[in-house]
Amino acid sequence: MRSVGAAVGVEQRDPAGLGGASTGAAGGDPELRAALDRCLGPDGAPRPDVARATARSVERLLAARPLLIGVGRALDVVPGMRSDLVLHAGPPVGWERMCGPVRGAVIGGLLYEGMAGTPAEAETLAASRAVAFEPCHHHAAVGPMAGVVTASMPVWIVENAAFGNRSYATLNEGLGKVLRFGAYDEEVIARLRWMERVLAPALTAALADTGPLDLRTLAARALQMGDELHNRNRAATSLLFLALAPALATTSRDRAETAAVLRSIDANDHFFLNVSMAACKAALDPAAGIAGSSMVTAMARNGTDFGVQVAALPGRWFTAPAPMVDGLYFPGYGPDDAAPDLGDSVITETAGLGGMAMAAAPAIVQFVGGQAADALATTRRMYGITLAEHPAYQVPALGFRGTPAGIDLLRVVETGTVPVVNTGIAHRLPGVGQVGAGIVRPPFECFAAAMVAFADALGPSDAPSPATVAPKEEP
Amino acid sequence: MRSVGAAVGVEQRDPAGLGGASTGAAGGDPELRAALDRCLGPDGAPRPDVARATARSVERLLAARPLLIGVGRALDVVPGMRSDLVLHAGPPVGWERMCGPVRGAVIGGLLYEGMAGTPAEAETLAASRAVAFEPCHHHAAVGPMAGVVTASMPVWIVENAAFGNRSYATLNEGLGKVLRFGAYDEEVIARLRWMERVLAPALTAALADTGPLDLRTLAARALQMGDELHNRNRAATSLLFLALAPALATTSRDRAETAAVLRSIDANDHFFLNVSMAACKAALDPAAGIAGSSMVTAMARNGTDFGVQVAALPGRWFTAPAPMVDGLYFPGYGPDDAAPDLGDSVITETAGLGGMAMAAAPAIVQFVGGQAADALATTRRMYGITLAEHPAYQVPALGFRGTPAGIDLLRVVETGTVPVVNTGIAHRLPGVGQVGAGIVRPPFECFAAAMVAFADALGPSDAPSPATVAPKEEP
Repeated sequence: MRSVGAAVGVEQRDPAGLGGASTGAAGGDPELRAALDRCLGPDGAPRPDVARATARSVERLLAARPLLIGVGRALDVVPGMRSDLVLHAGPPVGWERMCGPVRGAVIGGLLYEGMAGTPAEAETLAASRAVAFEPCHHHAAVGPMAGVVTASMPVWIVENAAFGNRSYATLNEGLGKVLRFGAYDEEVIARLRWMERVLAPALTAALADTGPLDLRTLAARALQMGDELHNRNRAATSLLFLALAPALATTSRDRAETAAVLRSIDANDHFFLNVSMAACKAALDPAAGIAGSSMVTAMARNGTDFGVQVAALPGRWFTAPAPMVDGLYFPGYGPDDAAPDLGDSVITETAGLGGMAMAAAPAIVQFVGGQAADALATTRRMYGITLAEHPAYQVPALGFRGTPAGIDLLRVVETGTVPVVNTGIAHRLPGVGQVGAGIVRPPFECFAAAMVAFADALGPSDAPSPATVAPKEEP
Repeated sequence: MRSVGAAVGVEQRDPAGLGGASTGAAGGDPELRAALDRCLGPDGAPRPDVARATARSVERLLAARPLLIGVGRALDVVPGMRSDLVLHAGPPVGWERMCGPVRGAVIGGLLYEGMAGTPAEAETLAASRAVAFEPCHHHAAVGPMAGVVTASMPVWIVENAAFGNRSYATLNEGLGKVLRFGAYDEEVIARLRWMERVLAPALTAALADTGPLDLRTLAARALQMGDELHNRNRAATSLLFLALAPALATTSRDRAETAAVLRSIDANDHFFLNVSMAACKAALDPAAGIAGSSMVTAMARNGTDFGVQVAALPGRWFTAPAPMVDGLYFPGYGPDDAAPDLGDSVITETAGLGGMAMAAAPAIVQFVGGQAADALATTRRMYGITLAEHPAYQVPALGFRGTPAGIDLLRVVETGTVPVVNTGIAHRLPGVGQVGAGIVRPPFECFAAAMVAFADALGPSDAPSPATVAPKEEP
């Protein structure tokens, strides 16, 4: 782990406009400064116990071996899933506080499940106690944008072969008027049914034929082909298509159906996004629950709140109001149409992809705004708040340097630099859908709150010799 | 067209070691200097008639719309093809002067055609008058490495929709021990037969189902995905696969066969290379035959000679001994094993791709050598000898600047900078195959010889007013 220097409280400006700066930093807040200081040794570097614990988290993140092993029905495979449960993105939020697009997706989910016949019935049901809401993250799952998962939806199953844990994410519907952006009309529901009845069985059969697909290798190749695996997934989608197509042909029940499945994947540049998210979730989960570790293990938003989790305090959300996204809008839409920042897809940045890996994907600026040079500058800046360079996820344009992986809460608080997140923009009203894409800066307040709680949970520094208390490593 | 400045004869060094420099330049050779001067006006810029003619060539190059329209048997579709004719890469060369890998590929081609039963019989036949040899380029075709085309081989058919001309190239066999690198054992011949009997019919049926595929758009997308479309074709191969797979599924005769076809494409990162070459050939041919145009319209090598053609002098080759390639070798091989520079694939550089577009493909340095930063520097340097920036072929890492397209003979001679070419390396002996890949610098002498002939063919400058003699534009 790098030493934490003496730049606390320096406000960093962001000449490229791609995020990464915040108005808040420890220097401006005595309580925050004191919390940070409690985590540092006399030399200004993290206390040895914190450094060791954090190193264990990042080692686990870098050792992850996510495999795509199948597709299943949420009710059958997602832990704790129930037919009266609707999962959503971000930290916990009830119907009353839900933003428009999450409400829209809930309405769509209830229509899709046949639990309501009309949007009005769905709203009534959602506001009653007959339906429960819980975060995807509480069920080893992640969902892009609204992140709504209902019982009948097919989900990708990813297993982290290094640690045995699994994660789940729905199949991606494409861009525009889709459930995850809050749309719920008949076209949206019909597409979800086709995904359940045609796409998912075809993928299930194909994955049974291929066996587990190595997502670490696939992601590494996609980074060399201009993806950052959050908002640019063209290469990864293509590589997944290449891996699946022979098996889809082999297991085909019907030639026309197989052709339709192939066309639907090719037509959706974001098809891989949900797989990428599940892979990142599977990689991060084993890094959580290590006392004293300051690595950020989850970031997520629900359009109302932005939430952060840290390895030392598993399951605890530190939240602040979800910010607005600075981005490019589809024709006919503008900032007044936008919902606040939304979705679990920031799990990719948490794992060292997405905005952290923008240097691999300069063409993404055509989607999220900015200049190609900003993409390189962004990744370079992110090395300042991360713990490692990913050994497999390399950026050719940076001389094959690994992506900045493992966000350190201490460094975020010390520098005031927050992670850069590439994201989509949903319409603020239910029923519309996507209106753009851009860059968002997570609220510094989440990290500040996590910092105080992290320091409170730390005991006094034991400063043991590493030789006498070697950390026990899992396989 | 940019003005040609006053740097004549300055020897340029190449700090990155990626080629682009030459020991010869006009300044060192009075005859060459005089030839160049005859093409320039008093201001040191090209004579107006030369500038106008050259602009027409480059406009045609940039206006090209190559479409992949089908696959056919060489004998049926390649103009002037005969069953006793063997096409080869580069400028004309007879059996006596052929390098090892071209001889190996000729032997393999005759075995494949059943014209010889053993390699020895094939050699005897090749040395007799019973078989004729002609360059691919004389038949609107291009072939990578040895470039051998025989009558039964399936070929891609590309049509330039802007001008109606067609071009042809064989299907790619993969890397290593393959015909185009001079190998000819049973495995090589069996693969060629499978390509003829299984792969080609499947592709023919699929392309009939898809209709023409727009290769300009596909190439533009591949450049944004880290290809340079000569030695890195992973993205383009993937995109072609994506375009063909649904049609392959729809037209499938047999599920296992379709799966095998799909796997063979996915397994060959260079599958798109031959399509890329045919697209470049189709784009360049209409630019040739314009009197007074100094644009380079073909570069090609046969392992014995490197040849160059210029638009004003269509069909004339200006040659010099083929140089050696500076590159990376497969395990067990080294420079002593290498044949000299070989193949028509340098048609990609001639059209503004390959080495000219290396900045789009920094990961290629893992295949051809050098550092990622060299890839950007190479493309930047190539703007110094080219006439335009391709409007469709953009490089994200250079702020979406178009690739350097349309090599100007005058600027090459003036600056002494030769194009940078990414290429494969064949074993010098027949029967072995590929041993590496690297960078090659075309011999300056080709360009010098072309310069003298170009100047000789120019009449006196008429220097007419552009208003009175507007060039007539073709559709």
